[in-house]
Amino acid sequence: MRVLGIDPGLTRCGVGVIEGSPGRTPALLLADVVRTDAGLETGQRLAALERSIVQYIAEYRPDAIAVERVFARRDVSTIVGTMQASGVVLLAGTRAGLSVAEHTPTEVKASITGNGRADKAQVGQMVMRILHLDAPPKPADAADAVALAICHLWRAPAIARLAQAAQRREIAQAQTAARTRAAARLTDAPRRFA
Amino acid sequence: MRVLGIDPGLTRCGVGVIEGSPGRTPALLLADVVRTDAGLETGQRLAALERSIVQYIAEYRPDAIAVERVFARRDVSTIVGTMQASGVVLLAGTRAGLSVAEHTPTEVKASITGNGRADKAQVGQMVMRILHLDAPPKPADAADAVALAICHLWRAPAIARLAQAAQRREIAQAQTAARTRAAARLTDAPRRFA
Repeated sequence: MRVLGIDPGLTRCGVGVIEGSPGRTPALLLADVVRTDAGLETGQRLAALERSIVQYIAEYRPDAIAVERVFARRDVSTIVGTMQASGVVLLAGTRAGLSVAEHTPTEVKASITGNGRADKAQVGQMVMRILHLDAPPKPADAADAVALAICHLWRAPAIARLAQAAQRREIAQAQTAARTRAAARLTDAPRRFA
Repeated sequence: MRVLGIDPGLTRCGVGVIEGSPGRTPALLLADVVRTDAGLETGQRLAALERSIVQYIAEYRPDAIAVERVFARRDVSTIVGTMQASGVVLLAGTRAGLSVAEHTPTEVKASITGNGRADKAQVGQMVMRILHLDAPPKPADAADAVALAICHLWRAPAIARLAQAAQRREIAQAQTAARTRAAARLTDAPRRFA
């Protein structure tokens, strides 16, 4: 399974691609940062970001995209650009027909380091160890994107199992409901006395 | 000049098209709201929104798009979707090769009603009067989008004049700088005594 991890941003957008299969060390294929010129209009910056994402999808043909879920936080200065960038990334992944998953920063940190409140350096160190690298991917935004991809690789089977269980539960509930309706129809059937 | 005004949103996105020329009552061509299914994934909702915007651009062929500039505000519950939607709208306009302008809610209200703190009802009433309609466009998101388009129609000449003035000022400064450099070269020229 090949995963493209994206840490959305308008000024710096982290991008990482890994490939892995159960029980084997995932291979790092890409760790990069897409930058857009702050002197351009927002629409032009978003279009430049979209072009880069589309190019990476075409080049690496991932099976899934994992995007950091953005929240409205206190750091208001950059949040608008980050959210607009995340919208464009989700759009680009969906338009490419890929499975697009969002993971929160806490989910990523917990998945990679075992601690949902790990700092950037700890995440970088664990990414280095997991992928058997000589140093953490640089810059930090690229390492965050790679961490997202690893998190998705590890969570994907569990998410799939949960979805299957939910589906089985839905089918069972639908069957029970159908049986109940059938029983009700029998009970509610007009009694004919003629 | 034909303007497509867009009040971005993921659940409800206001869309309005007006056409106007100096000294004439602008004509209202469209007032609508694009809704996306809250049950879908964000990427799919953004893709549905993008398809609608692209269709409106193809159908109405506007000269410019005016989008409400989003801010990080207190209303955190819907802000992520609104910002992601605004990113997709700015992207769609830029990709269509259109002039994309952002206006703040205060600019729109001040432009339409003379009061930057006017409420939705006041904006709707003024839109109705400006366009000689029998009632304000409904729902309110559609009226806001039409107000954005009117604001842009009225501000566009002023913005163009300011841009021209800035350009003239830049040219004048460049000419002065060139003359200064030429004078400096004359002054600094090595004196040859041979």
